[in-house]
Amino acid sequence: MYIAMNRSQIAEGRGDEFEEIWRARDSYLDEVEGFREFYFLRGGGGDYISHTIWESKEAFDAWVGSESFYKSHARSSFTPPDIFSAPAKLGMYDVLLEKIK
Amino acid sequence: MYIAMNRSQIAEGRGDEFEEIWRARDSYLDEVEGFREFYFLRGGGGDYISHTIWESKEAFDAWVGSESFYKSHARSSFTPPDIFSAPAKLGMYDVLLEKIK
Repeated sequence: MYIAMNRSQIAEGRGDEFEEIWRARDSYLDEVEGFREFYFLRGGGGDYISHTIWESKEAFDAWVGSESFYKSHARSSFTPPDIFSAPAKLGMYDVLLEKIK
Repeated sequence: MYIAMNRSQIAEGRGDEFEEIWRARDSYLDEVEGFREFYFLRGGGGDYISHTIWESKEAFDAWVGSESFYKSHARSSFTPPDIFSAPAKLGMYDVLLEKIK
């Protein structure tokens, strides 16, 4: 398994707007082979993470080159650039151990 | 839902040792009310995350005060402190959106 996290740092007072953009967005992930789980997370102080869990690194890589990825990211051009207070940081992780209840 | 991530930065050349400590560890999470998923993740450059998904913040808070938490963390006294190249960072996140296949 494989986890990809995209961390966004949002400017003060712009969190509600950023969340609204995400709520209105269709990720098209249901149709993607090897996709397991998606979470959009809010930490404190403007910290947000878009978090996806995959069967494998290969499934994630295939998604990044797919039409589903293109469709779900085409709308990001509607996000005002000044909503971010720092560049997004993408982290990719191999799952070494897991336990699912 | 609620996600807790503990990020560890491990000194160069000590990754295998750190992974072995985790493999030998029993988290006792199976017995915990409100626990859903645990992942131990490896990024690049010594970046590791212990990652747990919970039904709610309340379930996570109850776990932190429980005997299961105590038992699973008692062994961390066996981790040599010099294995870390920076202090661990705990991040807690509310799940605002989710999609599970």
